[in-house]
Amino acid sequence: MQRTPFAEMACSIARSLDVAGEWWTPLVVRDVFLGITRFDALQRNLGLSRKVLSQRLETLVAHGVLERVAYQERPPRHDYLLTDKGRELAVVLMALMAWGDRWTGPGDGPPMLLRHAGCGELTTAEVRCARCGEPLAAEDVVVEGGPGGRAGPGTAAIAERLAPPAARG
Amino acid sequence: MQRTPFAEMACSIARSLDVAGEWWTPLVVRDVFLGITRFDALQRNLGLSRKVLSQRLETLVAHGVLERVAYQERPPRHDYLLTDKGRELAVVLMALMAWGDRWTGPGDGPPMLLRHAGCGELTTAEVRCARCGEPLAAEDVVVEGGPGGRAGPGTAAIAERLAPPAARG
Repeated sequence: MQRTPFAEMACSIARSLDVAGEWWTPLVVRDVFLGITRFDALQRNLGLSRKVLSQRLETLVAHGVLERVAYQERPPRHDYLLTDKGRELAVVLMALMAWGDRWTGPGDGPPMLLRHAGCGELTTAEVRCARCGEPLAAEDVVVEGGPGGRAGPGTAAIAERLAPPAARG
Repeated sequence: MQRTPFAEMACSIARSLDVAGEWWTPLVVRDVFLGITRFDALQRNLGLSRKVLSQRLETLVAHGVLERVAYQERPPRHDYLLTDKGRELAVVLMALMAWGDRWTGPGDGPPMLLRHAGCGELTTAEVRCARCGEPLAAEDVVVEGGPGGRAGPGTAAIAERLAPPAARG
């Protein structure tokens, strides 16, 4: 399947998907976060083909989400570990997980629970306003044009819809 | 391309991806959130094929992320609108956008800015602990087994790695 390149789009959602949005990729990041860091163990846990897993790991390493750290020299074997960029992505996946807990599944409860070491409580990942700390609701968010916005593939109509903040007076 | 069905996996990330993780789908949700609610306008903005757009919209309607609301009867024409489930997904995409703003792009600044009507400030979507309200860092999160967890496709090794909280004493 020919993929349209999202990397060229002036949109940080599209660019994120270009790095991390391929089929299987978020589950690879999930597994590495859970401590499944070796090729064979990832392949066994996910049950995907070695070829696809190899491609996904290549992409994640190329984009700096994972780093390869040798644990054996002959034959060469590696652990895949999350970088800072990868750890921040894992946190976004926790927010997606909370959405899935709430809106998907057969009703037998969350498959995984998160405990926050900071406060010690079982918790969920909640998307909040970085400024006031309140949970964000879509209806309370107004989108404005940013400095990197432009009309182009994937954003043909968005740029004109979003006036830059300065132009709004 | 034959897709492995993520819906069957005992993982809320996988189940979320089954609904919203296909190529293009998050950008369709983004556009509807931005007010691009009609087929032709979505097709123009994204530049994808009508066939793929049609499939993606079908899936999102079938899963209750979008609802179709008629605005014209002859010929039948619809707006696609976010449901509550869809609005909560849009908020997760805002967290992904913040990651993309931070870690991707050519360095010309965020393409889109978010203003939180609640506090009036330009903000970013931040993933926080729902209990204590502090920003979540991956290294501060411990994953425990939940009631819906089980070994199976995509989670073959996870269930045994995660002891249920009760068993931990």
